[in-house]
Amino acid sequence: MTATTAQAETRAADEPVLLQEHEGGILRLTLNRPAARNGLSEALISALHDAVAEAGASPAVRVVVIAANGPAFSAGHDLKEVTAHRGDADRGRAYFAWLMERCSAMMQAVVHCRKPVIAEVQGVASAAGCQLVASCDLAVAGAGARFCTPGVNIGLFCSTPMVALSRNVARKHAMEMLLTGEMMAADEAMRMGLVNRVVPDDGLTEATMALARTVASKSMATVATGKEAFYRQLEMPLEDAYAYASRVMVENMLIRDAEEGIGAFLEKRPPNWEDR
Amino acid sequence: MTATTAQAETRAADEPVLLQEHEGGILRLTLNRPAARNGLSEALISALHDAVAEAGASPAVRVVVIAANGPAFSAGHDLKEVTAHRGDADRGRAYFAWLMERCSAMMQAVVHCRKPVIAEVQGVASAAGCQLVASCDLAVAGAGARFCTPGVNIGLFCSTPMVALSRNVARKHAMEMLLTGEMMAADEAMRMGLVNRVVPDDGLTEATMALARTVASKSMATVATGKEAFYRQLEMPLEDAYAYASRVMVENMLIRDAEEGIGAFLEKRPPNWEDR
Amino acid sequence: MTATTAQAETRAADEPVLLQEHEGGILRLTLNRPAARNGLSEALISALHDAVAEAGASPAVRVVVIAANGPAFSAGHDLKEVTAHRGDADRGRAYFAWLMERCSAMMQAVVHCRKPVIAEVQGVASAAGCQLVASCDLAVAGAGARFCTPGVNIGLFCSTPMVALSRNVARKHAMEMLLTGEMMAADEAMRMGLVNRVVPDDGLTEATMALARTVASKSMATVATGKEAFYRQLEMPLEDAYAYASRVMVENMLIRDAEEGIGAFLEKRPPNWEDR
Repeated sequence: MTATTAQAETRAADEPVLLQEHEGGILRLTLNRPAARNGLSEALISALHDAVAEAGASPAVRVVVIAANGPAFSAGHDLKEVTAHRGDADRGRAYFAWLMERCSAMMQAVVHCRKPVIAEVQGVASAAGCQLVASCDLAVAGAGARFCTPGVNIGLFCSTPMVALSRNVARKHAMEMLLTGEMMAADEAMRMGLVNRVVPDDGLTEATMALARTVASKSMATVATGKEAFYRQLEMPLEDAYAYASRVMVENMLIRDAEEGIGAFLEKRPPNWEDR
Repeated sequence: MTATTAQAETRAADEPVLLQEHEGGILRLTLNRPAARNGLSEALISALHDAVAEAGASPAVRVVVIAANGPAFSAGHDLKEVTAHRGDADRGRAYFAWLMERCSAMMQAVVHCRKPVIAEVQGVASAAGCQLVASCDLAVAGAGARFCTPGVNIGLFCSTPMVALSRNVARKHAMEMLLTGEMMAADEAMRMGLVNRVVPDDGLTEATMALARTVASKSMATVATGKEAFYRQLEMPLEDAYAYASRVMVENMLIRDAEEGIGAFLEKRPPNWEDR
Repeated sequence: MTATTAQAETRAADEPVLLQEHEGGILRLTLNRPAARNGLSEALISALHDAVAEAGASPAVRVVVIAANGPAFSAGHDLKEVTAHRGDADRGRAYFAWLMERCSAMMQAVVHCRKPVIAEVQGVASAAGCQLVASCDLAVAGAGARFCTPGVNIGLFCSTPMVALSRNVARKHAMEMLLTGEMMAADEAMRMGLVNRVVPDDGLTEATMALARTVASKSMATVATGKEAFYRQLEMPLEDAYAYASRVMVENMLIRDAEEGIGAFLEKRPPNWEDR
């Protein structure tokens, strides 16, 4: 271990695994295990789940950004933690089942969070790290970001990551990533639909925050209604989806922010949202 | 109001909100409320629904094109009509529920029409206007066309438009449009899958009509069978979809046009469809 | 008939409709009815189904490649075989129903095969030929390959091909192919998601085999688990998909190859799979 790495490890021990910053209604969550390539340890999964759940309930948070420190966005599960349970009486079965349940619950908390969640991807997003990007509502990637689901290389297929991945990209693209384990460049990820925008690496935070500010300028009540409806109607047949979405629109129409927003539009003035 | 606008308004009052032209089996429906940016008023929704339903039943119509007059394709719902009901005893709930039901029924009539429906998009397709494009089987856009679902900007999330949009494009693309309300250029819309072709603005009608003529040259019975089956099988698991589609092919094989078409193909001559 | 064609026909009569080669765990199946543009005759459907089913069960096969001899990949159903049954008492209904069932079962055998199946497309893949490409897990195309579902041109909509096609590409892209019957170039097919890679025609086999070798280097048990889970979870709502995929990962974690693969990764050495 070099002096620099030793310093990094020491520093890491003192710091939380997830940093939180708040500015102008935007909660920035930063994965902060750079020496471990932001592996999703128990502690990090738990911290992410709690932070996203709290953000969903907090009137002060309009948008969540998930960013990362260090050269990787996230390497996925922390294999050392996982293998430490190989010596359990059940060879780790109970622990791994518990861990999968915890991780899947965190990913679904991102999907169900009442606030939009944007991934800011600056390096490799691998396995459950790629799943986290796919689970976010929006994603911005630096030009040097890369994406992979390489579980197949270590005998452990990325089966939970593929749940999110295969709902973002075409089947053959998902299958290529899952069966080869190979990296997809940011540009390819954008063409496939896994990320919305690719920007120069040194402008990544600026571009992500600009997108976050755009979304944060909308009515929170409206955005929360719409995000929930988006994922629910996707799982319905067309006729049911229309019946459901029509009911959602009627309720939306009757909230104060819709009255204000439509009035402002017709009067050509900026709206004053209830929650601002 | 300038003299020109006053003239336009006067003229508009005399004209139907939906123009119909018929040439060579192709029914061109033209949204004709240019001064109102082709807002989908009650009258226009109703006229579209009737025209599409009649086209589906008419032996003279092989393909429907939905085009638009003026600088916009369609601005979506007519907000003035909507807000006029704010003063109702129920603050407009019943009216808005009725309107959503009417609009969703019209969009589904496009999907269920036995004739292919092609959107010809020459300007901004916004909110329910974008939904109309997404609901069509095919879409051709001029290079200057743009697409957005900006309800979020006025406090009213585009929840019914997203039913159609999210069945056309990848999730993150749909979410970006829905959460930001921003315009997508025609080229981006093509990359996302929302439109089939982008052509120079001054060649739009020509390109759309050429595509319509291609589709109109096929056997109507065959096309009607296939279009219905397309949307039905999409909502089934793979095994059910194959069982259903196999039954559809057997019935299709036994119609006169399949016998004629296969015979013509083997004899290297053009087919003579029953309905021509 | 020229001398060359006569020779070809003679030779074809002596040769199997499907060639099988085996190298390094990769089973190459080559459609071998070049004079009939590899039409999916009863014999060829049956040979493909048997070969894919056997490959799924064989410990010696890690990956299947489906390639083709001649200028076309496959022209789809053999129309001469089909029309020969027009004279049956039921005008061919029973025969055609039987044929559709056989063909759909073969396509689903590709999807359910425990080994990944890669299409190597060197020419036109038409109708059920296009469906075969769409049914494979991965596809590599030569730059000159083309794709179409032209049943609409002969009065017989490509209803079973569309089951596979519409699960690979966006709706409007699928509808354009189905309603126009027109060819899509290899590059367009890649943009739509129907094929993974487009390579120069003279490097097609090399590129496909390189991809096959990459996939063949993985743990067979892991790949089989993952492939099955991929298609099953796609048909579930998100919550069910996560519950199912979590169970799959727990079982996967406990197989010998996962223990070996994770150990090898942590020890920075190549894994020794059980089945190699």
